[in-house]
Amino acid sequence: MFREAIEQMTGYVPGEQPKGTKLVKLNTNENPYPPSPKVLEAIRAASADSLRRYPDPTASAFRERAAEVLREDNPEITPDWILCGNGSDDILTIVTRAFVGQGQAVRYPRPSYVLYRTLAEIQGARCDVVPYEADWTLGYGFTAPAADVRLAYLANPNSPSGTHLAPGEVAAIADAAPFPLLVDEAYADFAPSNCLDLVRTNERVLVSRSLSKSYALAGLRFGYVVAQPQVIEQLAKVKDSYNCDALAIAGATAAIGDQAWLAENVARVVAERTRLADGLAEAGYQPTPSHANFVWATHPSGEHPAIYQRLRDKGVLVRYIHHPGWAGGEDGLRISVGTPEQNDELLALLATV
Amino acid sequence: MFREAIEQMTGYVPGEQPKGTKLVKLNTNENPYPPSPKVLEAIRAASADSLRRYPDPTASAFRERAAEVLREDNPEITPDWILCGNGSDDILTIVTRAFVGQGQAVRYPRPSYVLYRTLAEIQGARCDVVPYEADWTLGYGFTAPAADVRLAYLANPNSPSGTHLAPGEVAAIADAAPFPLLVDEAYADFAPSNCLDLVRTNERVLVSRSLSKSYALAGLRFGYVVAQPQVIEQLAKVKDSYNCDALAIAGATAAIGDQAWLAENVARVVAERTRLADGLAEAGYQPTPSHANFVWATHPSGEHPAIYQRLRDKGVLVRYIHHPGWAGGEDGLRISVGTPEQNDELLALLATV
Repeated sequence: MFREAIEQMTGYVPGEQPKGTKLVKLNTNENPYPPSPKVLEAIRAASADSLRRYPDPTASAFRERAAEVLREDNPEITPDWILCGNGSDDILTIVTRAFVGQGQAVRYPRPSYVLYRTLAEIQGARCDVVPYEADWTLGYGFTAPAADVRLAYLANPNSPSGTHLAPGEVAAIADAAPFPLLVDEAYADFAPSNCLDLVRTNERVLVSRSLSKSYALAGLRFGYVVAQPQVIEQLAKVKDSYNCDALAIAGATAAIGDQAWLAENVARVVAERTRLADGLAEAGYQPTPSHANFVWATHPSGEHPAIYQRLRDKGVLVRYIHHPGWAGGEDGLRISVGTPEQNDELLALLATV
Repeated sequence: MFREAIEQMTGYVPGEQPKGTKLVKLNTNENPYPPSPKVLEAIRAASADSLRRYPDPTASAFRERAAEVLREDNPEITPDWILCGNGSDDILTIVTRAFVGQGQAVRYPRPSYVLYRTLAEIQGARCDVVPYEADWTLGYGFTAPAADVRLAYLANPNSPSGTHLAPGEVAAIADAAPFPLLVDEAYADFAPSNCLDLVRTNERVLVSRSLSKSYALAGLRFGYVVAQPQVIEQLAKVKDSYNCDALAIAGATAAIGDQAWLAENVARVVAERTRLADGLAEAGYQPTPSHANFVWATHPSGEHPAIYQRLRDKGVLVRYIHHPGWAGGEDGLRISVGTPEQNDELLALLATV
């Protein structure tokens, strides 16, 4: 009854969302602080009438506000360079469906966001996986021609490593690659640079953003992609007509409009990220320098499953990630940056487990 | 750069959402009344913390409440018979992607919901379109075997006609058809019967529902599909992990929990539907008996584009729909049931244009 590709795939398993427990939750890279108060105001102001009616199919209010904000560093960006999605996962789905057909292929590095595999599998496409070097850089293999590769994903900063490639390196990849490149910038607000400027010079570069992490709005589901207008025009054919709801549009518009809140929140998270990494190093771990809101850490003992379990038993949930066969190590722990109190609790526990 | 199927398609154009005007809006079948006050309460109660965190990937709260409600008439339904979507358009997308691959085909009647064509085109699938008879019944052609047809859509009640097929007729179609049948029940709450019971007896029947119309929540984007659990399990692989946001889940759960509000709202709309149809007949139109929240009307003059335009000039927006070559007539007007005042305004205008 179903397509063979669907019956054969296992499906993406999102990070655990435990219910009714008091776990310190450092496993899914949520922001530890609540969103801008302006977001709640905007949502509360959304009247009964805005629920009764269909939302704006193109989320114009958000695109106009976002273009104003992005134009400060990228003067070319106007609202028609932006397409909004129901979370950046929706954006990834739209982009994949637009470029990749059954029997074709996508390319992405490993270890990285495991959803990329699922997106390809749903399309009945092959995964052309290029391993990161042990130091989380990418070799020439990533841009090697392959007739059936129609799209590459590049999470930058990457998860689970928190590492990033400088815009010049990404530009070199985009210029060398004979296929479109989706730079997944879900974590870019925590990094010192981003790739938005590459969109201007190369129509095959698309940059996706999420409001889940840096704007503390994982529950609202809002993301967007920046690309040249003729690219946005094709992508728009693939999205559901009303893919963003009225409350999400209102909340996201307020969120991106409050750049003062963003700057303050990012500063707090980045300061704690440094303290967390330092604490991990003191406790005998090897933290990878991070440009995201989490830290990738390994321990010389290699006992990551046991450490994960002991932390969990003591009430702290981090993410255990296993990537067998990778040259840089088989597994490790991805730890979201929490509040100072949460990070203290984690570090104190690590000293004992 | 793009898939050929995407470049060649034109894309779905949603009903007009005029901004900043005072038009009486009877063109997109929105409910003329605001949603249950409990919906707003639930959304306002959604704390900042629920926005910061990822939502429940399977919208368990909604599925549990919906199963309780649906079980009153369909005792077999438990939460694992339900999959939630970001509007019922998301459900239609998920179902299409699960069943229909590139080079295969979907079947649907015409005139009906024009999105079905778009869904097929995005997949690179062929549209096997079966015309309704002039009286909006379906002939044997709809169930005729065709090797490449992998899914049929049946809007019931149908749009733009507002007509519906009785559950026995749909059961006969489902039993005869060698492919799965998606019964799109976006308007079923306004009809005297529905097809939920068919899901129990035939695993190839899926019933989709929307909260946009009868629950007055078009702006919130929430829909669901009811199917046997082993079918839901496969569909779940295709959906975005967090396809419903925290506020939509909270609002939708409150909405389906307020069945008293639903009964009262449906009664008001149905009473006005009768009055609107009677008024149209008095004004010389031929309204089709409707089981939805709109009325399909034609005029013996055939001057539908001109009538549409004159109504619009006078401040009332209805939907002009054109289906060239169809045996039952080339075009007509689909008029959403408004408030008594809105319907009065429309009927008064029709007497003059």
